[in-house]
Amino acid sequence: MEKVRPGTPEARVLEGYIMSTLFYEPSTRTRLSFESAMARLGGTVLSTESAGEYSSAAKGETLEDTVRTVEGYADCIVIRHFQEGAAKRAAAVASVPILNAGDGPGQHPTQALLDLYTIQREIGRLNDIKVGMIGDLANGRTVRSLCMCLSMYDNVQLYFVAPDVVRMRDDIKEYLTARGVKWTEVTDLREVAADVDVLYQTRIQRERFSNMDEYNAARGKYIIDKELMSHLQRHAVVMHPLPRVDEITVDVDSDPRAAYFRQARNGLYVRMALLKLCLADRMPDDHIAGLAGNGQ
Amino acid sequence: MEKVRPGTPEARVLEGYIMSTLFYEPSTRTRLSFESAMARLGGTVLSTESAGEYSSAAKGETLEDTVRTVEGYADCIVIRHFQEGAAKRAAAVASVPILNAGDGPGQHPTQALLDLYTIQREIGRLNDIKVGMIGDLANGRTVRSLCMCLSMYDNVQLYFVAPDVVRMRDDIKEYLTARGVKWTEVTDLREVAADVDVLYQTRIQRERFSNMDEYNAARGKYIIDKELMSHLQRHAVVMHPLPRVDEITVDVDSDPRAAYFRQARNGLYVRMALLKLCLADRMPDDHIAGLAGNGQ
Amino acid sequence: MEKVRPGTPEARVLEGYIMSTLFYEPSTRTRLSFESAMARLGGTVLSTESAGEYSSAAKGETLEDTVRTVEGYADCIVIRHFQEGAAKRAAAVASVPILNAGDGPGQHPTQALLDLYTIQREIGRLNDIKVGMIGDLANGRTVRSLCMCLSMYDNVQLYFVAPDVVRMRDDIKEYLTARGVKWTEVTDLREVAADVDVLYQTRIQRERFSNMDEYNAARGKYIIDKELMSHLQRHAVVMHPLPRVDEITVDVDSDPRAAYFRQARNGLYVRMALLKLCLADRMPDDHIAGLAGNGQ
Repeated sequence: MEKVRPGTPEARVLEGYIMSTLFYEPSTRTRLSFESAMARLGGTVLSTESAGEYSSAAKGETLEDTVRTVEGYADCIVIRHFQEGAAKRAAAVASVPILNAGDGPGQHPTQALLDLYTIQREIGRLNDIKVGMIGDLANGRTVRSLCMCLSMYDNVQLYFVAPDVVRMRDDIKEYLTARGVKWTEVTDLREVAADVDVLYQTRIQRERFSNMDEYNAARGKYIIDKELMSHLQRHAVVMHPLPRVDEITVDVDSDPRAAYFRQARNGLYVRMALLKLCLADRMPDDHIAGLAGNGQ
Repeated sequence: MEKVRPGTPEARVLEGYIMSTLFYEPSTRTRLSFESAMARLGGTVLSTESAGEYSSAAKGETLEDTVRTVEGYADCIVIRHFQEGAAKRAAAVASVPILNAGDGPGQHPTQALLDLYTIQREIGRLNDIKVGMIGDLANGRTVRSLCMCLSMYDNVQLYFVAPDVVRMRDDIKEYLTARGVKWTEVTDLREVAADVDVLYQTRIQRERFSNMDEYNAARGKYIIDKELMSHLQRHAVVMHPLPRVDEITVDVDSDPRAAYFRQARNGLYVRMALLKLCLADRMPDDHIAGLAGNGQ
Repeated sequence: MEKVRPGTPEARVLEGYIMSTLFYEPSTRTRLSFESAMARLGGTVLSTESAGEYSSAAKGETLEDTVRTVEGYADCIVIRHFQEGAAKRAAAVASVPILNAGDGPGQHPTQALLDLYTIQREIGRLNDIKVGMIGDLANGRTVRSLCMCLSMYDNVQLYFVAPDVVRMRDDIKEYLTARGVKWTEVTDLREVAADVDVLYQTRIQRERFSNMDEYNAARGKYIIDKELMSHLQRHAVVMHPLPRVDEITVDVDSDPRAAYFRQARNGLYVRMALLKLCLADRMPDDHIAGLAGNGQ
């Protein structure tokens, strides 16, 4: 995919629009990729890096009140919050589009979309695929959202490889079963590696553990290293939502099947598409005719 | 009021201008509304969310030195500071316009302007009005600035309803008396509610109390809830500078007389006007002729 | 130097380009001047004020991984880091230009360039000059980088005036000697002041001391005040990378030889030139032809 070039109409499609990021949890990747997406389309960004600490939230304001205020200043709001369901609560009171950039251990839908896009580009299809998901499947909102998205395709086979304390939660298992998606819990990573099209590794998230013993028991159990890569099929790829700590060793990076940095970059394109869809494409007329349709 | 539309000359009136926000205290509303105002007019923003912590201030630099540096990089500076008089000190050394976005327990003049604008739009006049001010009147710079502004109009009657520890300070009372503004301190909120055009509620600010017992005694004394709204006149409105905690109950929000979210949005328009006035309108020629007039 | 005027081609030379700031250490001046430089040329900024705390770094991500991600979202990266060599490590993995905005006690090359530019403008030459460097010469990356740059000119004489615990380190002394630059360590500031073209004062950096006794012994030893200015030659100037605490007294500010605020402003022009060089000037064709050459 080509970058949007300055001077072309595509580079100005969101000119005059304002996106506000409202981040109650740390993020580099998601916030910057949303902000870059807006900029690449000619739009403007109002950024709040640490809404929890330096904002009205610290004074006791509810999320709902914050959203009803910020929607007066922006044409859409990208929200990351530490509580499951926060984006939904925001959307319930907002008159501008709300984009969920991760709600605690809940969902991370734009990540799931970029993951789908990456699988399509790397493997060439979304039906008839085998995906191994590894690591913190209990708290990883990324894999949770991806499971739900993959359930819309045909003949998807999922393998879950997780330390005992962070196994995939029942709600997702039931969701998948109800939709006829085949899933299995496996303990031998090597066996899974040899069979799948996509090996989706995730980080054991220290910040989700209250007990450090459990954390230490969980991390380091399933590592993707050069040796493991030798079991992977030639056409298969390794994905990771990033950031990684040491669950994929650095010597894997140069393997052409290491797709995680390409995956991160795809986040830009997918978020550009989403922003265009939420803002420009909901306009009945030529977008230049105005913002009047938003938040009025 | 309509939003400024992209592609129109109004949406580009500050193109090429740079505004820097310099915030030494937390803020969502004020910072974002200033930044949105600049963006809606085509200008660019350099944002410093937490100047106190992540900046030269932490290294011991004076406010004056910071301002003399930042004015080299921006055409105007919006400053919020924890010390009364900070904006005045900044303006004394700066060669670019300084906009006071709140100086400790001192003043918050752009809030007062948007409050005036809101009263005019909601009630239809600024002369011959009765305004009840409630809550933390000692530390609330919002009500302090609003009192000073209202003293410029004829036949304004003010009621102050505050817990004992946070009663309106003498400096403002004397200022009002000297200008012939009628003011009374009242303890019965219901009586005030029945009489006024505007009920202006404020938050008891925990961060201004060193003693938690005093804080707990003060908050919760004067709450605006559905019952109280039944005493309010039909044409009257409830305003609040926001954020609120629980001094207005959520069930009041849907009452058409609840004007506080409209008030927050008015902050955008008022700040757009101020920025245009400070930057474009001080130009002798067509604004396109340049920045040369600023800060040189 | 004139500011770039909006509407002129110069004000749009970086239109469509995105610069990301990645700051792991506090900064006002450097970050804002880089961001202003980008804005003055029509470019867009993605800002990360406190990357160490609110980002993937807190989750254990390496600098290399962060850079490989962010380069997907920006056309160049400005990095400040607390570790010496960090920018070099970033550049080793990046496919977009990396600008070093200070790497711990290592280097601060863009500061050195603006210092050179300031000496040229204030004194009129870079050859045949005498420069006195004062203060924390051990930890001050500013003077370290400036020494290296000045070694490229002819007949430069350097005087080092520093408290014992923070004397210039051997690596720089050896570098200068090897290149034939004359340098002397002096203890009498007054004597140096009478002889030099440039008196370059620096702050004793509290954050680089683990022992507060050593810090207190070091600061306050060499102060530039009005009395000292009486020894300075008429054509000479006082420079300082800022922020200052009290190592130059405020009554010196009005002396026309006090060049430090002009020096700070020069940072904008030098960084504009650098950004244009890194982005627009590396294009083989008309820059409007696109971003395709960057980071692909």
